[in-house]
Amino acid sequence: MLEAAEAGHALDKAAFERAVPRLRTALLQAQYALKEAGAGPVLVLLSGLAGGGRSETANRLTEWMDPRFVRVTAFGPRTEEERLHPPAWRYWTALPPKGRVGIFMNAWYTEAIAAHLDDLRDADRLDGTLQRIREHEQMLADEGVQLVKVWLHMRREDLRARLEKLDSDKRTTWRVTAEHWRGYRRYHRNHDLFEHVLRETSTASAPWSVVEGADERFRDVAIGKLVLASLRAAARPARRAHAAAPVAPAALENVKRLRDLDLTLALPDDDYDRQLEALQGRVAKLTRGKRFAKRSLVVVFEGVDAAGKGGAIRRLTAALDARSYHLIPVAAPTDEERAHPYLWRFWRYVPRRGGIAIFDRSWYGRVLVERVEGYAPPADWLRAFDEINRFEEDLARAGAIVVKLWLHISQAKQLERFREREGTPFKSFKIGPEDWRNRKKWPAYEHAIADMIDRTSTEIAPWTLVEAEDKRFARIKVLRTLVERLEAELRRKR
Amino acid sequence: MLEAAEAGHALDKAAFERAVPRLRTALLQAQYALKEAGAGPVLVLLSGLAGGGRSETANRLTEWMDPRFVRVTAFGPRTEEERLHPPAWRYWTALPPKGRVGIFMNAWYTEAIAAHLDDLRDADRLDGTLQRIREHEQMLADEGVQLVKVWLHMRREDLRARLEKLDSDKRTTWRVTAEHWRGYRRYHRNHDLFEHVLRETSTASAPWSVVEGADERFRDVAIGKLVLASLRAAARPARRAHAAAPVAPAALENVKRLRDLDLTLALPDDDYDRQLEALQGRVAKLTRGKRFAKRSLVVVFEGVDAAGKGGAIRRLTAALDARSYHLIPVAAPTDEERAHPYLWRFWRYVPRRGGIAIFDRSWYGRVLVERVEGYAPPADWLRAFDEINRFEEDLARAGAIVVKLWLHISQAKQLERFREREGTPFKSFKIGPEDWRNRKKWPAYEHAIADMIDRTSTEIAPWTLVEAEDKRFARIKVLRTLVERLEAELRRKR
Repeated sequence: MLEAAEAGHALDKAAFERAVPRLRTALLQAQYALKEAGAGPVLVLLSGLAGGGRSETANRLTEWMDPRFVRVTAFGPRTEEERLHPPAWRYWTALPPKGRVGIFMNAWYTEAIAAHLDDLRDADRLDGTLQRIREHEQMLADEGVQLVKVWLHMRREDLRARLEKLDSDKRTTWRVTAEHWRGYRRYHRNHDLFEHVLRETSTASAPWSVVEGADERFRDVAIGKLVLASLRAAARPARRAHAAAPVAPAALENVKRLRDLDLTLALPDDDYDRQLEALQGRVAKLTRGKRFAKRSLVVVFEGVDAAGKGGAIRRLTAALDARSYHLIPVAAPTDEERAHPYLWRFWRYVPRRGGIAIFDRSWYGRVLVERVEGYAPPADWLRAFDEINRFEEDLARAGAIVVKLWLHISQAKQLERFREREGTPFKSFKIGPEDWRNRKKWPAYEHAIADMIDRTSTEIAPWTLVEAEDKRFARIKVLRTLVERLEAELRRKR
Repeated sequence: MLEAAEAGHALDKAAFERAVPRLRTALLQAQYALKEAGAGPVLVLLSGLAGGGRSETANRLTEWMDPRFVRVTAFGPRTEEERLHPPAWRYWTALPPKGRVGIFMNAWYTEAIAAHLDDLRDADRLDGTLQRIREHEQMLADEGVQLVKVWLHMRREDLRARLEKLDSDKRTTWRVTAEHWRGYRRYHRNHDLFEHVLRETSTASAPWSVVEGADERFRDVAIGKLVLASLRAAARPARRAHAAAPVAPAALENVKRLRDLDLTLALPDDDYDRQLEALQGRVAKLTRGKRFAKRSLVVVFEGVDAAGKGGAIRRLTAALDARSYHLIPVAAPTDEERAHPYLWRFWRYVPRRGGIAIFDRSWYGRVLVERVEGYAPPADWLRAFDEINRFEEDLARAGAIVVKLWLHISQAKQLERFREREGTPFKSFKIGPEDWRNRKKWPAYEHAIADMIDRTSTEIAPWTLVEAEDKRFARIKVLRTLVERLEAELRRKR
């Protein structure tokens, strides 16, 4: 793939000056059309040879476009805060919203290549990384992010000439660093590696464009045109129309586990008080220990309406150091959240090492309420299963202990609690027309829940079903589940 | 002030059970009214004796209210990321949006007291801190944040009994830490200090409420009522009606400096190219050096429409390491930004140590366009001068070098550039009806600019007026100003 960018492409001044005004006008129009359509965003990944002109390209693009709607982010060595979060966190939090253009310099490709070169990682490991990158980019594409992957390349002699010219003039020598010369010396050695990376990650939804960077005029116009085409493609309304994916008929069997739950399980008062304090004590100790400081905890509370999530959460938070946890009640997304891919609003709250995030409802909304109510088309919620599994895998790889709890009650118990809520002034806020509406769709929810548990109960992030007909029993089971997972995970060497 | 909370307040069970349902209903109604009005937020600061029941109170409040609209944040020792930012940064970024309730545990008071006790700081230094806290709280109040400052207190013997009871039961002993017993031993020694802090920071807009915490029922109901009253006060529409502050007639004299700028200053091409590269080289070196790693840089670009801010910014960013700077074009605020105090959206982008933030337009919008166009009432933009000065002082205290540039051109030159923009397709996005409208208000803007420079040009963050009739002259002056400020600041011992 690199060969095409070793041909000595150049653009003469006259041609450049003819091309640029038209290109700029078109870029601006396309930018406004994107913004108007609320589509995209367009994310330009600038990678390639050190000294290939990444910074100049980013500057040129912001000059040609309306800079108010362009955000350039350059990634360097990780800060402590970045190291304490899962690797993908810094890329997620920098993602531009819909209608905008983002330029990422040295993002995941530069990092993957540097890790490979520095640690002399074996090829399998690199391929594993590239596989995860492909999946990540596919997900971004599915969410409407238009990726423009630009690899800046040039012939070895052109790179040498460029670096020497800059280096020899005392006014520009500061532009050339040891990193640039190292890249030059390693030119041949890296060539195959770059080829491999490009080949492995050039996909239908996110292909690479290799651009020859020796001639600045050629480079700028070529990249300008690429961005223009992507802006136009992103704004085109038809592009997100997925072929309606066939929805598998919900298998009767997978509902069985849910229906077979023994909802008569209960706990007498005495047992409850004794066990509650004991378990809270163990949670307190486990989450304050040295071993936990190297891990983190993500707790997901989901459940049937009125199953008692709030009460169970309070019994948990009472045992935690308030400085270490963050409770995230998942309500309607803000407009900043709506302008980003689905998982972005959860990435915002992913805890750092030593931290705890408790989600009162979660990313599972996509395969529950959004599926059943039809807010998300089948293609979106179907791919959500995979995306969610990968998201949780990202968390687990970074040391998070992911605990997912489904609190379940019967239809009869729900009716009883709904009525009680309606009859109690300070509980009536918990019950509205929406709850009654959801209740009517009980069988559809039952299937969605069963599917969710089937498809997202993984080794690293299993679901625990909690019989919640008796609130005390449920609270104890929640705490016990947490204690057992924490003990098992913290015992394990990593 | 503490004495009132050493009286042995208690609430019997029957009274508690009568009070709670009414209180919860009222809290919920008030919470929804606040949300409906888009007012507030209400920010509850929980401070006081260690072991006084801060966590339990926070848990109780989230139980009684609708937890989806309550956010609890507990502050501990600073993380590295927090240490690398100005002290106020972590409080700003945690501020809840309008319509919500925030609960801050151990925020600025706990930190100020701990710093005083640990370093045995002298009393003057503490008083300086308290003065800054008063100013900060006044600003929050002016911005519609309703502060509820709760100090949890109890008699020494009650504290002892409470700690002993918890400690003696192996199920609850984990709740008691060394910090609690240290607080107990220091009870008398700290008493006067706490009194002093409370007295000094109990202001009309943000008074303290000292609540006796020995009896949980009394404590919870008392605090619930305080929060209720604040929710109601915040939602009341009349409360933000300021007495129209008298607007000082713009003094003719202060416009003189602006009018006297020598706009004929220009630079020949040759000089320009030579100086540009040399200055970029110096900026590059200065911002990549060891000394800079301990500081940060905040550059504010403001100026008349069409004065050439964008071009000057690009000449600067071309010299910077793309990983170290963040360019923030200030456009219309997002809804998350609108739901926070005015300066919040800028705090989001305050750089960490070693970082650079470049603002293309800035917080000065409040005293320019918002003042002239009447978007902000006089009371708001008048107090903005002080708030801005304090904001920049916060930055400077934390090591930021604040450089503010005003790019100025004549009315005639602006007309010429507007017409050129209209005639050039790829520049026409830079010109719209708004620009022509602003242009008609030239004299009003001139006075606003002059006032701004008068009132916010401080020793630590002076304004530099840049004659921008000749773009090359302006760009060189911008870079030279930066180089000189950087050199002077980095030379200085801190």
